[in-house]
Amino acid sequence: MFNSDISIYLLPLKFFLLSCSMFLARARLCTLGSRPKFLKTICASKILGLSTSAATLPRYLVKHQSRLFREDIFQKMSLKFKNAKRIEGLDSNVWIEFTKLAADPSVVNLGQGLPDISPPVYVKEELSKIAAIDSLNQYTRGFGHPSLVKALSCLYEKFYQNQINPNKEILVTVGAYGSLFNAIQGLIDEGDEVIVIVPFYDCYEPMVRMAGAIPVFIPLRSKLVDGKKWSSSDWTLDPQELASKFNSKTKAIILNTPHNPLGKVYTKEELQVIADLCIKYDTLCISDEVYEWLVYTGNKHFKIATFPGMWERTITIGSAGKTFSVTGWKLGWSIGPKHLIKHLQTVQQNTVYTCATPLQEALAQALWIDIKRMDDPECYFNSLPKELEVKRNRMVHLLESVGLKPIVPDGGYFIIADVSLLDTDLSDMKNSNEPYDYKFVKWMTKNKKLSAIPVSAFCNAETKLQFEKFVRFCFIKKDSTLDAAEEIIKAWSRQKF
Amino acid sequence: MFNSDISIYLLPLKFFLLSCSMFLARARLCTLGSRPKFLKTICASKILGLSTSAATLPRYLVKHQSRLFREDIFQKMSLKFKNAKRIEGLDSNVWIEFTKLAADPSVVNLGQGLPDISPPVYVKEELSKIAAIDSLNQYTRGFGHPSLVKALSCLYEKFYQNQINPNKEILVTVGAYGSLFNAIQGLIDEGDEVIVIVPFYDCYEPMVRMAGAIPVFIPLRSKLVDGKKWSSSDWTLDPQELASKFNSKTKAIILNTPHNPLGKVYTKEELQVIADLCIKYDTLCISDEVYEWLVYTGNKHFKIATFPGMWERTITIGSAGKTFSVTGWKLGWSIGPKHLIKHLQTVQQNTVYTCATPLQEALAQALWIDIKRMDDPECYFNSLPKELEVKRNRMVHLLESVGLKPIVPDGGYFIIADVSLLDTDLSDMKNSNEPYDYKFVKWMTKNKKLSAIPVSAFCNAETKLQFEKFVRFCFIKKDSTLDAAEEIIKAWSRQKF
Repeated sequence: MFNSDISIYLLPLKFFLLSCSMFLARARLCTLGSRPKFLKTICASKILGLSTSAATLPRYLVKHQSRLFREDIFQKMSLKFKNAKRIEGLDSNVWIEFTKLAADPSVVNLGQGLPDISPPVYVKEELSKIAAIDSLNQYTRGFGHPSLVKALSCLYEKFYQNQINPNKEILVTVGAYGSLFNAIQGLIDEGDEVIVIVPFYDCYEPMVRMAGAIPVFIPLRSKLVDGKKWSSSDWTLDPQELASKFNSKTKAIILNTPHNPLGKVYTKEELQVIADLCIKYDTLCISDEVYEWLVYTGNKHFKIATFPGMWERTITIGSAGKTFSVTGWKLGWSIGPKHLIKHLQTVQQNTVYTCATPLQEALAQALWIDIKRMDDPECYFNSLPKELEVKRNRMVHLLESVGLKPIVPDGGYFIIADVSLLDTDLSDMKNSNEPYDYKFVKWMTKNKKLSAIPVSAFCNAETKLQFEKFVRFCFIKKDSTLDAAEEIIKAWSRQKF
Repeated sequence: MFNSDISIYLLPLKFFLLSCSMFLARARLCTLGSRPKFLKTICASKILGLSTSAATLPRYLVKHQSRLFREDIFQKMSLKFKNAKRIEGLDSNVWIEFTKLAADPSVVNLGQGLPDISPPVYVKEELSKIAAIDSLNQYTRGFGHPSLVKALSCLYEKFYQNQINPNKEILVTVGAYGSLFNAIQGLIDEGDEVIVIVPFYDCYEPMVRMAGAIPVFIPLRSKLVDGKKWSSSDWTLDPQELASKFNSKTKAIILNTPHNPLGKVYTKEELQVIADLCIKYDTLCISDEVYEWLVYTGNKHFKIATFPGMWERTITIGSAGKTFSVTGWKLGWSIGPKHLIKHLQTVQQNTVYTCATPLQEALAQALWIDIKRMDDPECYFNSLPKELEVKRNRMVHLLESVGLKPIVPDGGYFIIADVSLLDTDLSDMKNSNEPYDYKFVKWMTKNKKLSAIPVSAFCNAETKLQFEKFVRFCFIKKDSTLDAAEEIIKAWSRQKF
């Protein structure tokens, strides 16, 4: 069989050698920066006194314009070519900023939710095999590769009271991100209100704003915790406060369970409160459940779409990246009634049309392997949370051992902790207007070579203050990465005390 | 080396056997349709006289609602949950309709632009190898995997007068489709006018409308052709008519060269007319050049972005699917000045965030292979058009041999022909309101087991009449597929005459 073929084990080495030779070849091929720039001064000075239209320039000058010269005139020319209004102010992004910081290979990266554990061998092997099949490298059905929607319907109908129509009630998207976008663009109009629970996965707010809608925020609030461990379940919505956010303009609420970054797994009772309000106000529910399998001992994941009266108003979103630890595959799915899914399909056919075929087929094959053994502890849906629970406990212990009080997550693969207790001197950090956690993470990445994500990145402007003392650590990491993080944190603690 | 390993050649067989066993296993696992529906009648009749809110239903009834019952109440309930206005009327799609028709395995499919030739072996092998590398299955940089944007900048700076900054002047997208969407959403505002040349790749119009902008159409017109072959170069824009479409509200023109479906390769002089108007009216140019390598003897592809004054106002769009005959990879790219690309990046980070990592890395590796041998006839950028030119000539000859007058394409992999000359009796076709070519293709698919795409699908409502006699055939097909098409067409011709 293919997986016993020795060549597969030599691939990483071969790839490394290939990459080395490629790199050397490229260095010869691609001599960036070697072209003459002698026209820079003359062109720049000539142009700035002229019209901003290149039409008025002698052709030979424009043709040979250097990069610097180009940038000079473009600053003037681009005034007409500004962004469309719908994306005004939506250009900052926490991942871009902090991923760049953590790219330094000497940094131990507990930032972005990016597994460095190996994805299951069979998942990678499926893709390797499928890549060799001609027809699976070509376009497939736009709303989801037939074998994938079939596998998804078979998987999820175990959790719903009803069958799920693979073609009309499922849409495969470019990641769960793509599902969120399709749902919001397909169903939310300008001026609609959308309830967003704080903290929230950071794209919710700009996606709602890009649709011209108004995000209405409500924070999770923690009850006082003395003595005992601080748990993500201590963070709850106040039912009265939540009810006050609903009105006739409310088009949707975005729910996220298990919750990123808190790790909260909403209880049945909590979800019932939300469901009752959705039904009372005839409101949609966009339920982001990408961490659905990652729930720890003593907790249970509930799907709000299975609550009475909720199927018909809920889009439930899942993710291949989180399900199989392959975030780079960028496949997700939306499940819901066809009268909602059809609008997401319309968005899809006018934005990306279809998702990558080889990845969809490989995902389908991998799903079938685990669908057949869902009661087996070896099923990845069962084994991954077991593996992660050990890592969660280790992180809790580590953070506590240096005097921090982490919020113990009941699900997901993040843990947050109030780092203000470390009393770090951040006075030499630039951008003093930034929230405390932004400065802290930048300081820690630079000085301690450990990266994380500031929790205020998951807040709207008004609630940042409420969460700016918290930092999020990702623990879907191999032991050697957690060892390195432990070493850093313990050495830091020894320095302090 | 891996590619000499015999196991790779056995993969399709292994995959087939695996699929068979999987299918049998699934049939046992997933017994769709077996659940009780006994509550259908009582529930449906009870509900229709009640409030439309499920909140008013006894829980046990809602919990056990059957599919039919669900659909009854949802029709009422979904009144509030209609599509967002931005996608109103954008739900029909030619690919979905005609791809479904051609899915019958007895049909010879010359419809969708979907190669059934093998993609290059090294392209598939790169993906097979990369799938085995853990880190390449995780998230990568959102605006383009570092090795891919580097390869693209190295490739394209051979064609531009300037270096291309891989991080600021290139954006990797979910197919060229994603690039079109990002460009239109990022740069076009409500009420802007966008010039679209007819016929046009069908997504241009709904994408412009989804941005709330107004498409302004101008048709390519054919000069009279007597005796000699009818060529795609006989179809041109009238410069005066084109100029009349530009005004102060014109935000952009969408160009497509080589052109789908006509196969027209715009000449330098034709592009200069467009460039002059873009500069005069300070207008953007979105240049869809996905068939850039597929240009036949006697023709040359020009990039309008390299024309004086055009770089700063042009987004040039390319495609991995067309470049390497892997349409299922769904990778494309936008190249342009950073003051434009940054707005496309903002759209990307609020829609899909990033593209699939293993596919991006495999594409980068494949590009390096061909970048190193661009003057070599074996380079795929050179060998594919040579291979396709033979197929094009074959299709021209075939269509002529049955009395049709095809428009000989100078580029791309489609050929269109006026099929009204066949004088087919379509009187028994349903949907008599459909354009002639829609009915013809449906008739041909059903009765002749040959599929194609109606050219009026590439037209706005007002110009459909002008093109409804034309049908598009795709010829990026292996010889056995073209043999089968030839057999059908020749037998049909024998029946007629």
